[in-house]
Amino acid sequence: MPTINARLPKGMRDFLPAEVIKRQYVIDVITDIFQTFGFEPIYTPVLEMRETLMGKYGADAEKLIFHAQHPGGKEALALRYDLTVPLARYTAMHEHDLTFPFRRYHIAPVWRAERPQKGRYREFFQCDVDIVGVASMAADAEIVSVLVTALQRLGFADFTVHLNNRKILTGIGLYAGVPQTQLSELYRSIDKLDKIGLAGVERELAAVGLAADAIERMMALLQWREGGVETLGQVREQLAGVVPAQEGITELEQMLEHLAAMGIPMEHITVDLAMVRGLGYYTGPIYETIITKPENLGSVTGGGRYDQLLGLFRRESLPTTGSSFGIERIIGLMERLNLYPPELSGTVVQVLVTVFHAGTQSASLALANELRAGGVRTEAYMNPKRSLGKQIQYADRKGAQVVAFLGDDELAAGVVKFKRLSDGHEVVSSRADAVQTVRALLGG
Amino acid sequence: MPTINARLPKGMRDFLPAEVIKRQYVIDVITDIFQTFGFEPIYTPVLEMRETLMGKYGADAEKLIFHAQHPGGKEALALRYDLTVPLARYTAMHEHDLTFPFRRYHIAPVWRAERPQKGRYREFFQCDVDIVGVASMAADAEIVSVLVTALQRLGFADFTVHLNNRKILTGIGLYAGVPQTQLSELYRSIDKLDKIGLAGVERELAAVGLAADAIERMMALLQWREGGVETLGQVREQLAGVVPAQEGITELEQMLEHLAAMGIPMEHITVDLAMVRGLGYYTGPIYETIITKPENLGSVTGGGRYDQLLGLFRRESLPTTGSSFGIERIIGLMERLNLYPPELSGTVVQVLVTVFHAGTQSASLALANELRAGGVRTEAYMNPKRSLGKQIQYADRKGAQVVAFLGDDELAAGVVKFKRLSDGHEVVSSRADAVQTVRALLGG
Repeated sequence: MPTINARLPKGMRDFLPAEVIKRQYVIDVITDIFQTFGFEPIYTPVLEMRETLMGKYGADAEKLIFHAQHPGGKEALALRYDLTVPLARYTAMHEHDLTFPFRRYHIAPVWRAERPQKGRYREFFQCDVDIVGVASMAADAEIVSVLVTALQRLGFADFTVHLNNRKILTGIGLYAGVPQTQLSELYRSIDKLDKIGLAGVERELAAVGLAADAIERMMALLQWREGGVETLGQVREQLAGVVPAQEGITELEQMLEHLAAMGIPMEHITVDLAMVRGLGYYTGPIYETIITKPENLGSVTGGGRYDQLLGLFRRESLPTTGSSFGIERIIGLMERLNLYPPELSGTVVQVLVTVFHAGTQSASLALANELRAGGVRTEAYMNPKRSLGKQIQYADRKGAQVVAFLGDDELAAGVVKFKRLSDGHEVVSSRADAVQTVRALLGG
Repeated sequence: MPTINARLPKGMRDFLPAEVIKRQYVIDVITDIFQTFGFEPIYTPVLEMRETLMGKYGADAEKLIFHAQHPGGKEALALRYDLTVPLARYTAMHEHDLTFPFRRYHIAPVWRAERPQKGRYREFFQCDVDIVGVASMAADAEIVSVLVTALQRLGFADFTVHLNNRKILTGIGLYAGVPQTQLSELYRSIDKLDKIGLAGVERELAAVGLAADAIERMMALLQWREGGVETLGQVREQLAGVVPAQEGITELEQMLEHLAAMGIPMEHITVDLAMVRGLGYYTGPIYETIITKPENLGSVTGGGRYDQLLGLFRRESLPTTGSSFGIERIIGLMERLNLYPPELSGTVVQVLVTVFHAGTQSASLALANELRAGGVRTEAYMNPKRSLGKQIQYADRKGAQVVAFLGDDELAAGVVKFKRLSDGHEVVSSRADAVQTVRALLGG
């Protein structure tokens, strides 16, 4: 058969073993925190009916969805684009098998045919945690609490969860006299605040015809980026009589009260009335986490309340709130900020059992199995023609810390010789004590 | 937005939380054994270039491959059909970043548009473990060793690994005078032995024109289903002078020697000269595991040596041997044979913190976080309008073993009341001792 060129689809990645081990570490830490908070895992297939996904993400996003079909197949399928629409479908299909409130997490790849660029891929993992069936702000506070706890457990020290509420944004628009039809342009401009600055936002709003005094009144509100219920009281006064704003402020106050009572360190929380989060389906609280040191490293979580979305596939919606962890970005930052625990070397093998000659190969395999039965991660070398020196080099490349020698002399004496590679320390041990001896060498 | 019917593609599955937890348990056990044997994980994307997969599986299988593309996309893509061709592509692309021998495992879903039927799905998990770069039978013995160890660890007691060697099958064909061009028909007939019986195989071979005495000589060989090197000696004598058969027997003998030395219980091993395993790319040893009690429950692993396949995407191949675990079938049998550990209830939540009224919601959330900080998997109830009775019912449905009460009296006294649901046992504890108290209740 002629060899063909091995290549990957655009924007897609293989991972080497050391990378897989590190990615799995992050997933395991987050999974553990999710379960500690009482969230349960779900699984949905990669392929969905195409009609399940269409009309949910807007025309531009829809172009990025990968279609799938098998030759002669009648079903028009698609690879999932996120984990939220599948959650809505799943909840509708299994509502009689689920207990509500339904607290679920889901960590799985999604596909988007975006233009590949540094740090952006066409197959990437999403990590979502949501509470379905609770309208109370207690649920939103729990989501923020799980975000903070997971980031802390991963080793992040300097981050801020920005809180806002879609109802306040709507209220600010009403307060400034922005017509209903122009609210989305208002949001889009505010969303660009970090990029174009206050002056830029002012210019954009003037360009769409907003009165200068309305813009000015809004600008003061948008600069509000502080925590604490006291400051919110001033916003409440300023937006007196604006019903959605009053509702949104009450919700924010409730969240902040819960968070304070729960012992969430308030230096991690800030109210940011200019935070928009693309909006789309959000209906109440929205939250986003920024890594702040050694510099602003961007957003690592984003979420909020979306009380209407679960109604996509059932007669009545269910109040729902939740957040995504930007797990790909988190994995990148773990490396950059050196947050992996030192013992997570990315290698598997702890001990390499060498082989002296073909006649002792079986004995080497047997020793390897004895060490494995004791829980030691062991590889047996399988080419007796290579010198012991080369075998030790191989052990080093594989990341093994200890090498075992079992030649004819050791076999005759019923012993095994171990050597620790870091310092060359050697120990001769009886076979019966082999596991114990290795453990001591690995620990020392 | 009008609601649309929530449905899944044909042959694809959602999993409820309890199912995900059990599947993950099986994956975790197998992963742990793989790592103990020094195998490393890899990750490859779900989508491959279509050309990578085409021409590798035969025309019938190829029809089952799902094609994928995004609207306007130029790349013809496909969902992976197995984990073996991706391994060949991966090894070719990353050979300079890998250390050989390369011992890898890969547990991931694959897609095949087969006609859905009971126990057969279009998206299902495969679990492969392979050693790339070792020609020695030591590698094949290690693969059998890892199969046996993993099945034992999962709790399977009654299973047999059937061993054969493709070279012996070729030798038997030569010995019986089957022309090279009819060898594949011979294999196909032998493969049906379990279904059509010896008489059926005889009839089929006669129909393709094999001489009666040739068939008779073969039949005696094919009935050989025993372990041990002694019996193989007799086969060796009978096939004296048939070069491939002699080679295959030597390989089998070497494997059996290694396995015996490694302490693999020989009651789990049998030589089965009629075992064919679809053949295709196999070049030497082949192995398959059958669960034997309470009845023949079919095959749960299958594999062998395929020394040519890794040459698909590189100039020279690499000798490779490995096996698949039929993880979907194993998961089904775990349930049927009741092999899950009793503590794996399929539920996450250990403690439910109830809520008395809206004014104590924050306090309940705070208690939940205290228990979580102590490693207790805790859910906080969030609807203060529901009676405590209903909340306890909910705790029971969620599988929580302990319920916590924190009303105004408890708050005033700085205590919390816990109740174990199984026996109604109640304990009042100080807040400081809450984690310890819960641990005792959960353990008792």
